[in-house]
Amino acid sequence: MQILRVNMEQLGVRWESVPPEYERFGGRALIAKILLTEVPPQCDPLGPHNKLILAPGLLGGTNLSSAGRLSVGGKSPLTGGVKEANSGGDAGTHLARLGVKAVIVEGQPADGKLYALYISRNGAELFPADEWRGLGTYATVARARERWGEHCTVISIGPAGEMRMTAAAVACTGYDEQVSRMAARGGLGALMGSKGLKAVVLDASGCEAPPLADPELFRAAARRFAQELAENPRTGRQGSMHLYGTSAIVEAVNEMGALPTRNFRAGRFEAAENLSGPRLRETTLARGGKAGTRCMANCVISCCNLFMDPTGNPIVATLQYETIGMLGSNLGIGTLDEVARLNRICNDLGLDSIETGAALGVAAEAGLARFGDVESFVALLNEIAAGSVLGRVLGQGAVVTGRVLGVSRVPAVKGQAMPAYDPRALKGNGVTYATSPMGADHTAGNAFGVRDKVNPLASTGQCEASLKLQLDVTMLDSTGLCLFARPPVFADPQLMVDLINGRFGWGWSVEDLQEFKKTVLRMELEFNRRAGLTSADDRIPEYMKREPLPPHNTVFDVPEAEMDEIFSSL
Amino acid sequence: MQILRVNMEQLGVRWESVPPEYERFGGRALIAKILLTEVPPQCDPLGPHNKLILAPGLLGGTNLSSAGRLSVGGKSPLTGGVKEANSGGDAGTHLARLGVKAVIVEGQPADGKLYALYISRNGAELFPADEWRGLGTYATVARARERWGEHCTVISIGPAGEMRMTAAAVACTGYDEQVSRMAARGGLGALMGSKGLKAVVLDASGCEAPPLADPELFRAAARRFAQELAENPRTGRQGSMHLYGTSAIVEAVNEMGALPTRNFRAGRFEAAENLSGPRLRETTLARGGKAGTRCMANCVISCCNLFMDPTGNPIVATLQYETIGMLGSNLGIGTLDEVARLNRICNDLGLDSIETGAALGVAAEAGLARFGDVESFVALLNEIAAGSVLGRVLGQGAVVTGRVLGVSRVPAVKGQAMPAYDPRALKGNGVTYATSPMGADHTAGNAFGVRDKVNPLASTGQCEASLKLQLDVTMLDSTGLCLFARPPVFADPQLMVDLINGRFGWGWSVEDLQEFKKTVLRMELEFNRRAGLTSADDRIPEYMKREPLPPHNTVFDVPEAEMDEIFSSL
Repeated sequence: MQILRVNMEQLGVRWESVPPEYERFGGRALIAKILLTEVPPQCDPLGPHNKLILAPGLLGGTNLSSAGRLSVGGKSPLTGGVKEANSGGDAGTHLARLGVKAVIVEGQPADGKLYALYISRNGAELFPADEWRGLGTYATVARARERWGEHCTVISIGPAGEMRMTAAAVACTGYDEQVSRMAARGGLGALMGSKGLKAVVLDASGCEAPPLADPELFRAAARRFAQELAENPRTGRQGSMHLYGTSAIVEAVNEMGALPTRNFRAGRFEAAENLSGPRLRETTLARGGKAGTRCMANCVISCCNLFMDPTGNPIVATLQYETIGMLGSNLGIGTLDEVARLNRICNDLGLDSIETGAALGVAAEAGLARFGDVESFVALLNEIAAGSVLGRVLGQGAVVTGRVLGVSRVPAVKGQAMPAYDPRALKGNGVTYATSPMGADHTAGNAFGVRDKVNPLASTGQCEASLKLQLDVTMLDSTGLCLFARPPVFADPQLMVDLINGRFGWGWSVEDLQEFKKTVLRMELEFNRRAGLTSADDRIPEYMKREPLPPHNTVFDVPEAEMDEIFSSL
Repeated sequence: MQILRVNMEQLGVRWESVPPEYERFGGRALIAKILLTEVPPQCDPLGPHNKLILAPGLLGGTNLSSAGRLSVGGKSPLTGGVKEANSGGDAGTHLARLGVKAVIVEGQPADGKLYALYISRNGAELFPADEWRGLGTYATVARARERWGEHCTVISIGPAGEMRMTAAAVACTGYDEQVSRMAARGGLGALMGSKGLKAVVLDASGCEAPPLADPELFRAAARRFAQELAENPRTGRQGSMHLYGTSAIVEAVNEMGALPTRNFRAGRFEAAENLSGPRLRETTLARGGKAGTRCMANCVISCCNLFMDPTGNPIVATLQYETIGMLGSNLGIGTLDEVARLNRICNDLGLDSIETGAALGVAAEAGLARFGDVESFVALLNEIAAGSVLGRVLGQGAVVTGRVLGVSRVPAVKGQAMPAYDPRALKGNGVTYATSPMGADHTAGNAFGVRDKVNPLASTGQCEASLKLQLDVTMLDSTGLCLFARPPVFADPQLMVDLINGRFGWGWSVEDLQEFKKTVLRMELEFNRRAGLTSADDRIPEYMKREPLPPHNTVFDVPEAEMDEIFSSL
């Protein structure tokens, strides 16, 4: 595999062999390594010295199930620290099959224009794309596929990224109707916009899966992995993950009192049942939509959906839990049709639905919209689309929105909005939000999955739980594996070791795997330290420490001194 | 003297004897000490745990010339760090004569209403003042004086502070027509607003100067101090400081190529002569205005003015250099009448003219106003007055304005806008902006005064110069002395020691004085460290390191490693 360097100042591309120090990293780990090696940690995240990195995971491109996620990274314009966000879809698989270990985008075009990068087995080239300026995600994908073929995979930004809004995401196409999978967090869409890069188009036709160092070992491990996923009561054909996707947990989070409701005023939403996984599936299927589909070709779980409006028109694929929480209950919105409508607009503008949902919640708290009134939120999203001053405020995310509008109740850490678990009722997630080098991000270590082992309301035991989760997900994010596919490799680390050794022949032990996880966090923490982040940034907002959250009426009370020591064993 | 504690949650006041550890501090030093002792460094600056502190300097209340400045402080909502801003006028003198070493305002009113604090020799009391909501500085002062007498001194916020805008200042009345002297920087008006405190009214009638430990020593030193000021060629009756006030330096800064012009695009402004000190004096006197007046009763320098419009109506007292630079050349505005008009609006809204000028410059860069077109800037100030979303963006200062509008050319350090000296052509000020615990602030150590000794364009020697200046001004800011009154005490530190010993009998030596200065910076740096600021915050904006500034076409190139060591001798 090779590194593809794209210089936006000189508008040229260059293939490089992979430097030895990058060789054993992929996805999130590779992004951390590149940032630490190449990017000045104190640079302006939207200036010429930051770099946008696209990297498949170590297992990307293989025929392993659920391993095709694409990692997108750079210094975050939202948090000011290291950032990796990953997305389902075909991009990770196709980039790896094109032989690309990472695309590293550098500099900024002097002419301020937009460009598209096209990569096929014949090479890579930059094309002018300024005529696509202002196009939404759907139109951008359509134009790119008109030009380069329907089979192409498209990684793109919408108007939000072009306007360098720090709530902007990077969209990836996927299998079939999955065209707006988001590498959502950290404002990486703004970073891509600052590079003048409207789209990266991948044509992997004629490309093969990468070679295997030990085909027998790999295939045996991959078969076992797929089989265990298929037989797992949650990821298998009768499992809630397959049937309902991420929305499976709406009712459980609501029941535990952690579902963000009306800008994190409450943890239970009276209309949660209307937003639930079963309701989503039933509604979708009744309208001729789809459920249990895939975002990437090689996935035995198949958790996706295609949500339709009442007349049978496709609205969004896939409607997910975080969106339901942040654009639904957090805004007092109690129907899936309304949530899907808001989600569609966010997807088309290229906005992170988590950051945007939080910003809209803060705006409602300031009186600019009314909780429960979808039209008032559509109006705010239209402001973002128009690039009005109000729209640009909202597009910067929850923290800027709160600061401008004078709202102190802003659910965010390190400048990034919290996803759809209130940390007062799921305190392990509070620890992850506070301490993860990624800022408030559930994918960095979601304690929802260990709620039966660690009391979510207790102030003790959360740091240990969060640390373990934070370490474990580094491996998923660095191999391209989906979080949903974690059961087999979490249950038996040797399985992950076999996959790595089968693919690369590195002769890893389980200890090497554990060390790898620590290395990822260490690199990320070091980048953040150099960027100027300190334990003062590892804090849950002050109001959550004094304002009790109904129905449990708990505050976030994990001791800060304990959180400050969470990584001391690394 | 006593500490007056004001609890805005319980709406009560309490007199306390001065704790021994506060005894030997005043003004800026006392603020640092109180913050370090009482305020959680990581608290929400606009939340209940921050404190607003008003403190006269150590020499406040005496009959010493030019020593009546009031220090205002707290954790800055603009920088997130320690902040002291001081103001001329009568407040420092009157507060000291009322026996108040510091007013410490804590908590926040549960009812969200506005209050006024009245202090006389009969005591202190909080009064409802919600009927003053929305009043500008001038009307607030008028109302307060209607109620408590024309002789009262008023410390107040305008609508900007009420709206918790981080460009908001605290206004102080002074001698005669001086009613809008500003403790301008750091967004302390927003902090005062967050406490629900619209005004502090001081009635010092019947109060005496504080007792002197060694009257003979003090009076001899004070006489010598006044005499040296009177005889100094710059502060005396024929001196430029007396004749022109701070505006004396407009032409010199322009000549050196450091006058911010059109959002720091250039260092020379073609219309600088029209904004000069001589032009200001001549215009003012020709219209029946005043020049060479005082802001505080005991000042032999008398650098103030009362600027009139062409028909002889008073517009602003005092029109000053920083305002001329930031609302004038920085906006491409080339007449004093236009600058005074913008200044008047800022003063009435209770806005820092430096932060606001920088924010307006960034807005013009984004196309929301036109450089040189005063009406376009008046329109933006009207947005601030109206509290529109655009107005609230601008009212948050230059950094938020730049972030929202997508402008990366933002002249700021630690979230605070630079005053009117471009650091690319006066590099010593660049070092002060970068390293001062106060953020970009010329009063923290202005190298303009040493331009004949240290080449302003050289990359070497700036750190030494800045450090010496930063240390020296701590003593001015902690004694209540005006920067203009520095020549006698800078020339002979023993004079300052005599004043301190004459007032308090502490038996200080010059070494004690030097140690005191270090202690002040150490405390401030320690507060910032605990608040999470690092050397990554001690940086000049990236664009100033690559964009040459005409006419010298220099960039800011003082090595960061050298700046990082500036305080190592403390």
